[in-house]
Amino acid sequence: MKTIGIIGGGQLGRMLAMAASRLNFRTIILEPQPDCPAAQLANSQIVAAYDDRIALAQLADACDVVTYEFENVPVEAARYLEKLVAVYPPPQALEVAQDRLIEKQYLNSCGISTAGFRAVDSQEDLDKALAEFGGKGVLKTRRLGYDGKGQMVFRAGDAADGVYARLGGVPLILESFVPFAREISIIAARGLDGHIECYDPAENVHRNGILHTSTLPANIGLAVAVQARDAALRLLNALDYIGVLGIEFFVTDDERLIANEIAPRVHNSGHWTEAACAISQFEQHIRAVGNLPLGDPFRHSDCVMQNLIGDVINEVEAWARLKDVLIHLYGKAQPRPGRKMGHITRLTGHRL
Amino acid sequence: MKTIGIIGGGQLGRMLAMAASRLNFRTIILEPQPDCPAAQLANSQIVAAYDDRIALAQLADACDVVTYEFENVPVEAARYLEKLVAVYPPPQALEVAQDRLIEKQYLNSCGISTAGFRAVDSQEDLDKALAEFGGKGVLKTRRLGYDGKGQMVFRAGDAADGVYARLGGVPLILESFVPFAREISIIAARGLDGHIECYDPAENVHRNGILHTSTLPANIGLAVAVQARDAALRLLNALDYIGVLGIEFFVTDDERLIANEIAPRVHNSGHWTEAACAISQFEQHIRAVGNLPLGDPFRHSDCVMQNLIGDVINEVEAWARLKDVLIHLYGKAQPRPGRKMGHITRLTGHRL
Repeated sequence: MKTIGIIGGGQLGRMLAMAASRLNFRTIILEPQPDCPAAQLANSQIVAAYDDRIALAQLADACDVVTYEFENVPVEAARYLEKLVAVYPPPQALEVAQDRLIEKQYLNSCGISTAGFRAVDSQEDLDKALAEFGGKGVLKTRRLGYDGKGQMVFRAGDAADGVYARLGGVPLILESFVPFAREISIIAARGLDGHIECYDPAENVHRNGILHTSTLPANIGLAVAVQARDAALRLLNALDYIGVLGIEFFVTDDERLIANEIAPRVHNSGHWTEAACAISQFEQHIRAVGNLPLGDPFRHSDCVMQNLIGDVINEVEAWARLKDVLIHLYGKAQPRPGRKMGHITRLTGHRL
Repeated sequence: MKTIGIIGGGQLGRMLAMAASRLNFRTIILEPQPDCPAAQLANSQIVAAYDDRIALAQLADACDVVTYEFENVPVEAARYLEKLVAVYPPPQALEVAQDRLIEKQYLNSCGISTAGFRAVDSQEDLDKALAEFGGKGVLKTRRLGYDGKGQMVFRAGDAADGVYARLGGVPLILESFVPFAREISIIAARGLDGHIECYDPAENVHRNGILHTSTLPANIGLAVAVQARDAALRLLNALDYIGVLGIEFFVTDDERLIANEIAPRVHNSGHWTEAACAISQFEQHIRAVGNLPLGDPFRHSDCVMQNLIGDVINEVEAWARLKDVLIHLYGKAQPRPGRKMGHITRLTGHRL
């Protein structure tokens, strides 16, 4: 029986461990927090920091392949591991995803459109970039932002004085506004043999910068779906990627797709696959990194996935009363505002 | 977060632990074999015999409710536990299911038809019973037989001399042959509030006494389905049952239902529910014993479940290539002849 190491102990690791077990892979979680959501389902846990070299060597020794469940795994840790054991997705995907500037440059180099952007490494850079973008845009830290954290919105006339210093003098990026009609994402997988499979695009609604719902089918035409699929193919092939990856897009009124960000891992906007497809994104990722044939991403049902954030977890009994609702909770003890505690997927119709 | 204890560490416990985790229940497995299939997915394991009183007390202390995944849990252990913690399904269900004679008597007392049967406690009993059944029937040990083990078939003219002693002088039962057109089973659940939900009946094919396939829908008319449902309602209410229970039936040519055996637990012929329903039998059982509302057992797809027995586990990569096939393996290291290593469910059509 083969063993898969998973760096990171959150809900994505938990769902990966569950999918792995059903295909007879054993799993070991590397995560500093004991009894983390993933370790509750995995065969074992190494309790250590993600960049602990002794723990990484121990993980490599015990595993046939190592993967990860979040994109802020230290790249040096992944590069170190790679010398000892197969690491999928490739560490280069981490490098690209961890820095919003490199990410946008890389997407553009693959022929994938993004918002306009400028690197901001000084107050002078910021003033100049804002002037170029008509005083408007979203200023973001290049690294370590997620779920809307570390972002600042500029509307025409907003003062920028001293903002660079106030944000800590860290590398920033100013992105131009994209007026969009809707947001979608695509979850795609590439196997060791280079074969690629894509799930149907989901239409996503965010609240307070956090994903609220993903709805299938997305309210888009075939041309938009084909663009999304094309972008996934370009990116996965360019990165020589192995595993599941998510790309979030804005869809403009005139049906152009603007890539917003990529996640080199299973993605929240793909949780619906566990309810509406025979093969979930979690199983697909395990198949890819475990060298099994990719599954068919056929979607048998229409559905809406909704995140259960913070106290909403207390509504579970009401959800449990509804027909055709799949509940999935993450084993987290404390509900905190903004904390993802679980999700539900409601099947809304079945396709022949 | 509540904790559910599970007695028994096989694949049924494994799938229960997985379903429990998704509803934020923690699980503890009581099982003498370390690293058993269930413990690989559960939060923890107590490694001890099923009747170890210290271990049972430890389990009761750590859990809000205790359930079990096989019907041969010692009744005394369940009765002892019951004084310390809630135990569902009720231990009486174990008593009924563990003894083929008591089982048939109980079914008949609920108005559920079975094959004719005679208790056999001596060679004289056997000779007399065979004479009454025209020399034909199936002789079974009253206790501890499963998957066709501990059974002997008599056809007219077969000699019975010395058979009682040869079978060890244990209590036996002779059952009359039931000429049947097909075999079906029904999986039903009853909640703490007395509410009952039934899944669609499955049509089952056995090979060498072991379940081979379950097919949905079963090739039966509405009248037969209603009989199966009616039998489940009678039995669950009579036992004041909490949890999931399976009943296997023969269907005669003239569409009469003859109950064959009951399993006071999740059942192999209900594994398809995980692929073809929003709420699987495993989640349904966890909901029942965990005091959540029962889920709707609506079946969204037609399907065929097939057990992967022994070496068939090596065909998994071929199954992985097929569309709409859900693979579920049990984390067992050694394939042995007759050992259930996993199952697959193929979705064969979707209902609107």
